Amino acid sequence: MSVTFARGFRAGAAAAGLKSSGALDVCVVANDGPAPAAAAVFTSNKVSAAPVRWSQQVLGKGDLQAVVLNSGGANACTGQQGADDAAEMAAATAAALGLDAAQVAVCSTGLIGLRLPMAKVCAGIAAAVSVADADDASGTAAALAIMTTDSVPKTAQFQAERADGTTWRVGGMAKGAGMLAPGLATMLVVITTDANVDGVSMQAALTGACSRTFNRLDSDGCMSTNDTVLLLGSGAAGPVDAADFAAGVHAVCQDLMRQLQHDAEGSSKDIAITVSGAASEEQAEAAARAIARSALLKCAVHGEDPNWGRVLAALGTSDAQFDPDRVDVALNGVWVCRDSQAGESRERVTWPGREVTIDVSLKAGEHAATVWTNDLTAMYVHENSAYSS
Amino acid sequence: MSVTFARGFRAGAAAAGLKSSGALDVCVVANDGPAPAAAAVFTSNKVSAAPVRWSQQVLGKGDLQAVVLNSGGANACTGQQGADDAAEMAAATAAALGLDAAQVAVCSTGLIGLRLPMAKVCAGIAAAVSVADADDASGTAAALAIMTTDSVPKTAQFQAERADGTTWRVGGMAKGAGMLAPGLATMLVVITTDANVDGVSMQAALTGACSRTFNRLDSDGCMSTNDTVLLLGSGAAGPVDAADFAAGVHAVCQDLMRQLQHDAEGSSKDIAITVSGAASEEQAEAAARAIARSALLKCAVHGEDPNWGRVLAALGTSDAQFDPDRVDVALNGVWVCRDSQAGESRERVTWPGREVTIDVSLKAGEHAATVWTNDLTAMYVHENSAYSS
Repeated sequence: MSVTFARGFRAGAAAAGLKSSGALDVCVVANDGPAPAAAAVFTSNKVSAAPVRWSQQVLGKGDLQAVVLNSGGANACTGQQGADDAAEMAAATAAALGLDAAQVAVCSTGLIGLRLPMAKVCAGIAAAVSVADADDASGTAAALAIMTTDSVPKTAQFQAERADGTTWRVGGMAKGAGMLAPGLATMLVVITTDANVDGVSMQAALTGACSRTFNRLDSDGCMSTNDTVLLLGSGAAGPVDAADFAAGVHAVCQDLMRQLQHDAEGSSKDIAITVSGAASEEQAEAAARAIARSALLKCAVHGEDPNWGRVLAALGTSDAQFDPDRVDVALNGVWVCRDSQAGESRERVTWPGREVTIDVSLKAGEHAATVWTNDLTAMYVHENSAYSS
Repeated sequence: MSVTFARGFRAGAAAAGLKSSGALDVCVVANDGPAPAAAAVFTSNKVSAAPVRWSQQVLGKGDLQAVVLNSGGANACTGQQGADDAAEMAAATAAALGLDAAQVAVCSTGLIGLRLPMAKVCAGIAAAVSVADADDASGTAAALAIMTTDSVPKTAQFQAERADGTTWRVGGMAKGAGMLAPGLATMLVVITTDANVDGVSMQAALTGACSRTFNRLDSDGCMSTNDTVLLLGSGAAGPVDAADFAAGVHAVCQDLMRQLQHDAEGSSKDIAITVSGAASEEQAEAAARAIARSALLKCAVHGEDPNWGRVLAALGTSDAQFDPDRVDVALNGVWVCRDSQAGESRERVTWPGREVTIDVSLKAGEHAATVWTNDLTAMYVHENSAYSS
């Protein structure tokens, strides 16, 4: 269903020749209103790509009505030429849609440091706009066009019914399979809604949802130069309560985040690390992230080794407050560590599938947070050393 | 030569049965003076092991004259029983040497969360003390006894001659092959010197040397619960100028650090990341460390892929000040990135052996720092997932 699930949007995709496979690699999402609004969250990487800088600038103007995306090249670390190329992509999209360039955001993903082949890109944009449609197939095609090392396209949808029987919707698409870490990942996400919500509420809903979903996915600790999460509202389904709207956006973000985790490069386990009993949510998140970033722990989970000592060793490097002699740790529900010592037998831990839970109780407060990560595998090393990506 | 290179020290080792292989696993280093002094640096991990807590306590008393070390068990996350066991190791060593328990430091390394078999440990201590000697072979045996996943023992020596022809010495041994990261690594280091230097100068020399050697080795981003660097001075060779002494300690630390890097689990490359042109040395170190921690970059180096984009993407996550459009990057001496864009051809980069250099110029100041790391390999994953360690 993707970005065309919500009413008021068209999507179109084309194979511009950026991918050597000949697969779809350029797409456009257009917001047909009647009340266009937009919000966005961008990478916090200081070395941001030209399309990120362009999109940040046009978002600030408050009249975004379309986005153009390409795979097959990140347009990052490309200097003034890269900035000119991002602007040209916006201009080409605007020309085809009857908009101004300043109404078009740009997202790119692929290898850093190479210039995009602009003749191919612009021909692809024209082709994508020419086939743009509001049907399901067009939304799916857009999700395919943004894939890089992804093994599957990622889409999500949410629908709520009002008391009078009318409905409003949120839909979205995402790409990303590596460099999945806070602030954000090598991740492009476009979410659309037909709810009529003002820009301030829309940004608040998106920022809140990202902080607890995409920003808590820390697959490999790496952060991209190109990450962008866009939320576009058409207003076609009328006003929606702000809290209801935030819940809908959160549901779609959470769904897409779990799909990104599931497709992480070379992974064999999806690990949810929940730290509770923390003095604050920030401390719970920091403690969970320290554990998520332990290469040794990620290897142990890959080997199905209930090595809780590596959880404590990683926890001890975080700034969270806790008594180092009172920590409890459960692996897949078995409390193998109680008060920072051996608890239930390690032999009781079972590993039934991809899903792994690590629960840590700090006994230092009332707050909790979950960070999601993956195991570290020989396949991850292979995928990231055998060729450039 | 190891810890018996400097005059005034005896070492002894024994096979106590902690290692299933039957190899040496317990050793003792005794300081015979005439003017015993000591300094130490410990892990900054909040979850510190019982022997670390014991050693911190006895160091504070200012009369350390021996250290007992074991491999085959970390005695970490073992509760009050673990604290009692560490104290018993000190007491057993003291009894055999004719000292008080409070004059003996304790170091342990191995799996977290298991109690040490104390009957075997104490018998091993007695055996180690009974064979303790000042000869080279005894120093080498001690270096063998502290090995865990190390493939080779690590020892170093430094000798300086005064104007009058007399000499003073620094020697040392180290173990560590994984969890090599700041603050420190799974690393036990004992350094001995016959220089007669007061405790304050000794601590200053050790802290300074550690901050630029062991603390800048960041092999896998993981930090142990047991790390200890001990410096013992016998005074047997008389007084030494403080600056000369610091240089000698630094040389031995640097030598041992590079041996630890070279033996890092599963590694095929030793990477030296030097960031220059930083606004401060701290910022240079932070920037180099952010690069050293990029799993994607470490995979690229393993695959001999001159992927400078991953250097910039990692750099952009650090707090160092720099203009993101003005960074230069050299891989093995080839400046493949100039002003944050493609520079010399990637094809010019060659990979002649284990040694890899990554040089980054931030153009934001006059300061520089080097951080050492390793590549990320399938063998690292295998060694850390196939069995507990």
